[in-house]
Amino acid sequence: MKLEKKFTELKALLAEISDLNGASALLVWDQAMYMPSGGAPARARQMATLSRLAHQKFTDKKIGRLLDALRPYEESLPYDSDEAALIRVARRDYERAIRIPNEFVARFNAHVAETYQRWTEVRPANDFAAIRPNLERTLEFSRQLADFFPGYEHIADPLIDFSDYGMKATTLRSLFHELRQALVPLVEKITSQSPADDSCLRKSYPEAAQSEFGAEVVRQIGYDFQRGRIDKTHHPFMIALSIGDVRITTRLREDHLGELLFSNIHEAGHALYEQGVDPAYENTPLAGGASAGLHESQSRLWENVVGRSCGFWEYFYPRLQAHFPDQLGAVSLEEFYRAINKVEKSLIRTDADEVTYNLHVMLRFDLELQLLEGTLAVRDLPEAWRERFQADFGIAPPDDRDGVLQDVHWYSGAIGGAFQGYTLGNLLSALFYTQALQEHPEIPHEIRQGRFDTLRRWLTEKIYRHGRKYTAPELIRRVTGDDLTLRPYIEYLQAKYGELYSL
Amino acid sequence: MKLEKKFTELKALLAEISDLNGASALLVWDQAMYMPSGGAPARARQMATLSRLAHQKFTDKKIGRLLDALRPYEESLPYDSDEAALIRVARRDYERAIRIPNEFVARFNAHVAETYQRWTEVRPANDFAAIRPNLERTLEFSRQLADFFPGYEHIADPLIDFSDYGMKATTLRSLFHELRQALVPLVEKITSQSPADDSCLRKSYPEAAQSEFGAEVVRQIGYDFQRGRIDKTHHPFMIALSIGDVRITTRLREDHLGELLFSNIHEAGHALYEQGVDPAYENTPLAGGASAGLHESQSRLWENVVGRSCGFWEYFYPRLQAHFPDQLGAVSLEEFYRAINKVEKSLIRTDADEVTYNLHVMLRFDLELQLLEGTLAVRDLPEAWRERFQADFGIAPPDDRDGVLQDVHWYSGAIGGAFQGYTLGNLLSALFYTQALQEHPEIPHEIRQGRFDTLRRWLTEKIYRHGRKYTAPELIRRVTGDDLTLRPYIEYLQAKYGELYSL
Repeated sequence: MKLEKKFTELKALLAEISDLNGASALLVWDQAMYMPSGGAPARARQMATLSRLAHQKFTDKKIGRLLDALRPYEESLPYDSDEAALIRVARRDYERAIRIPNEFVARFNAHVAETYQRWTEVRPANDFAAIRPNLERTLEFSRQLADFFPGYEHIADPLIDFSDYGMKATTLRSLFHELRQALVPLVEKITSQSPADDSCLRKSYPEAAQSEFGAEVVRQIGYDFQRGRIDKTHHPFMIALSIGDVRITTRLREDHLGELLFSNIHEAGHALYEQGVDPAYENTPLAGGASAGLHESQSRLWENVVGRSCGFWEYFYPRLQAHFPDQLGAVSLEEFYRAINKVEKSLIRTDADEVTYNLHVMLRFDLELQLLEGTLAVRDLPEAWRERFQADFGIAPPDDRDGVLQDVHWYSGAIGGAFQGYTLGNLLSALFYTQALQEHPEIPHEIRQGRFDTLRRWLTEKIYRHGRKYTAPELIRRVTGDDLTLRPYIEYLQAKYGELYSL
Repeated sequence: MKLEKKFTELKALLAEISDLNGASALLVWDQAMYMPSGGAPARARQMATLSRLAHQKFTDKKIGRLLDALRPYEESLPYDSDEAALIRVARRDYERAIRIPNEFVARFNAHVAETYQRWTEVRPANDFAAIRPNLERTLEFSRQLADFFPGYEHIADPLIDFSDYGMKATTLRSLFHELRQALVPLVEKITSQSPADDSCLRKSYPEAAQSEFGAEVVRQIGYDFQRGRIDKTHHPFMIALSIGDVRITTRLREDHLGELLFSNIHEAGHALYEQGVDPAYENTPLAGGASAGLHESQSRLWENVVGRSCGFWEYFYPRLQAHFPDQLGAVSLEEFYRAINKVEKSLIRTDADEVTYNLHVMLRFDLELQLLEGTLAVRDLPEAWRERFQADFGIAPPDDRDGVLQDVHWYSGAIGGAFQGYTLGNLLSALFYTQALQEHPEIPHEIRQGRFDTLRRWLTEKIYRHGRKYTAPELIRRVTGDDLTLRPYIEYLQAKYGELYSL
C-alpha cells in the first residue's frame, strides 16, 4: 500500500516533466512553423529554460529515492506490467540523465545553438573552414559525453545508446558490412542500365491539389486528423505534443510531385506510431517510440515498403490521375511506378532512392566512428567525405555544401549516434512487413483495395501501443521471435528491384 | 556591490518566470489557433503545470528575501531608474501573489476551466439555469479572493486592483455616473433620428482582399510584422510571447466589411503598445502594459479615435475602393464615414458603436458590484440584466444567450474587475489623443496623408516604452500633468457625433 502511494508520487513527478516536454515540443513546432523572426531570441531562452527545468526536476534526488524505494514493488510485478515498465524505463532514463552534469548540459546546449546558427550561414556560403573550429569543439564535447559512461567497448557506444538503446558500434559495423556487400552489386547492376524516366513527376503540379491528395492518402492509411494536423515547411518533421496531438509537416514543390507525397507518407508513418501508443501511457515516460531505428522503421515501412509498392498505386493512381488529369492522364501506372522508384547515384541523402540511401548513411556512420576514434581529424573531414563518396558512388560532390555540410545532424548535436537509426529503420521496415505478411497474407490484397486496417492494427498491436515499454531489441524479439536480421530487407530489395530492372 | 549581485540574482529568477509565462502564452495562442481537438486534455495539463510552476517559483521565499535585501538598493536609486522600477514592480506583484494560497489557485483554476467549458455549451443552448450553480461558486471564489486582501473599502476593490491598479469601486461609480449623465441624452438625440445607412458595409467582400487590405492598414499604422503575425480566429485577441513576438488574431465576415477591418486595428492598437515597450525590459516584469484600462486606451485610440475618423479615411478610402471597386466604387467617402460610425441601440457589447458601448460596460460593472455586495443573487441575475437593459436601451434582450450569457468574462474568471477597463480605455483614448494634439497640432494633417509616425512616436515616448514601469495613475499624470478626467472624452464624442448627426 505504501509502495503504491510512492508509485503515484513518482508518476505525478514524471507527469510534470512530461508537461514541460510537451510545452517544449510546441515551442519547437512554432519556431519552425509560425514564429516571426523577432521572436527568435526570446524563444531560444524559453526553450533553454524549459529544458533546464525538465532536466533539473528529472535528476532531482527525490526521483532517485523513489526509484530505489520502488525496486521491491517493480520486482513484485510481472515484467510485462505497465507499472513495472514505467519504473524500469524511468530508472533507465534517470540513471543516464544523472551522469551528465547540469553544467555540461548548459555548456553543450549553448555550443550547439551557436554551431547550428553558424551552419545555417556557412552552408549556403559553402564555407566549411568557418565552422571547423565549432565542429572540433563538438567532437570534444561528444567524447566528453561518452566518457560520462565509462566501460564502453567503443567510444561511440554510449552515443549510439542514446538513440538506439542496446546497439553497439561493432555490431553495427559488421551488420552494415554485410549490407554493403549485398547493396553495392545491386546498385551497380541497376545503374549500369539506362536510368528510369521520371519526367512524369517533373511537371507543374499546383499546390492546392497536391495538398488535398496528400492529406487524402495519409487519412486513408490511418493518420487521425482529430489528433494531428499537417503544415507546410522546408524540412518536414513529425512532432508529438501529446498522444492526442501528433503533428506532421510537409514540403512541397510545384515542379515535383514526389516531394509532398512521400514526405507526407513518411512523416505520417512516424505519426501513426505516436498516435498508436496506448492512451494510458499519456503523460508518462512510456509515451513515444522505442528507439530511433524503431521510429524510422515505421516512416520507411509506410513511405517505401507500402507507399512505393505497386499494389498501393493500383488503388491510389486512378485517384491521383483524377486530381491531375492533364499531367498524368496519359501516363500509365507502370510508368508512374517506375518513376517513383527510380534508382540513381545522387548527392543528397534525403533525396536518395531506397537502394542507394543506405550507402549515404553508412558513409556518415563510418566517418563518425573515425572522428571519435581519432583516426580522422576534423580538418580532413571534407576530403575524407569526397574520397569515400567517390569510392561509393563513382561521383564526387562538387562542393562541401552538398558534401560534408549537407546534413544538420553534426551541426545541431553530438558527433556519434546520429545516423545509424536510418539504416536500422530500413532493415526493420522489411523485417516487420515480412512478419506481418506471414501472419496476415491478405494484406497485399487489402492494400490494392486501399484498405490498411489489418496492417495498421497489426503494427499497433505488436509495436505502436507499447510505446517505450520494451527496448528495441526486446520488441524485435517479441514481434519476430528472433534478433534483428538483414535477410528480409535484402530479399525485399532484390525482389522489388530485380523485377523493376529485370535483373 | 553585494547588492548589485543580489539584483542580478533577482533578475535571473524573474527571467525564468518570464520564460515560463512566454511559453504559456504560446500554449494559449496555439489552443485558440491550430491545436487539434484531441490535444485538449494534455494542453489543459500543460497549461496548469506551467502556471503552477511560475506561481510556485514567483512566491518562493528566496524572492521575498531578495526583495527585502534590495530595499536599500532601491531607495538609493532615483524613482525613475529602471532598476528601482523593476524592484518596485516585482515587489508589488510578489506581495499580491503570496497572499493567494497555492491550493486556492489550483481549486479556482479547476473551477474556472470547468465553468468555461460549460459556458461554451450552455450559451448556444440559451440555458442559464445549467450554469447557475457554477456562477454561484464563482461568486463565492471571487469573495474569498477579495478577502485575501483585507482592509478594502469595497469588496470589489481588490479585484479591480488586479487589472486596474489604484482604481476603486467608489471612484469608478462616480466617474461612470458622470459619464452616464452625458451619454444618455447624446444617445437619445442620435437615436431619435433615422438610423444611418450602413448597407455599403453589408455587401459581399471576399476574404483574400479583406485580409490584404487589413494587413496593409495595420502595417501602415506601425504594426511590425517582423515581430508579429495575424491569424484568423473567431474571437480576436492580442497576445505577447515576448516583446519580439506580439501576435494578433482577427475575425472575418465576407458579408460585413467592418468586422475584420476594425478588429485588426483594435488588436494592432494593443500590439503597438506591447511592441513599443523598451527592449531592455524583455524578460523582466516591466514588459507588458500598465493596466487593463491603459491597454484598452491604445486599442480604442487606434480603432476609434484614429481608425473611425474622417481624416484617416481621406487617405485610406480610395485605397479601400481600389480593393473593392464593385462594392464601393459608387459609395462616397461621406456615406462610408457615416456607415462606420452608425449609432444604434443593439444587444451585443462587442458589436456596439462608440456612443452606446459604455452603456453596455456600465451595466455589467454595476451588476458585478451588486453581486459582490450581496444585493443581487445569481438566480436573479438574468432578470436584473433584462430590466437594466430595458431601462438603458429601451429594448429587452429576447433571451439569455444575448443577455447574461453574452460575455465570456464571468465564465472564465472572477466576478469583479472584469469590465471597468473597457470604459477606462475609452476615456483615456480621448484624453491621450487630446494631449498628443496639444503637443503636435500637425497630427490630424499627417493622418490625412496616411502618416502615423508623429502620433506613434509620441505614444511610444510617453506610454509604450515604459511598459509596466509606472502605474496607470502615475502614467496619466506624467502624460497629461493631471489625473484622469472625463472632459476630453465627452467633448470628443459631442464634437464628432454632433457634426455627424447635426446636433
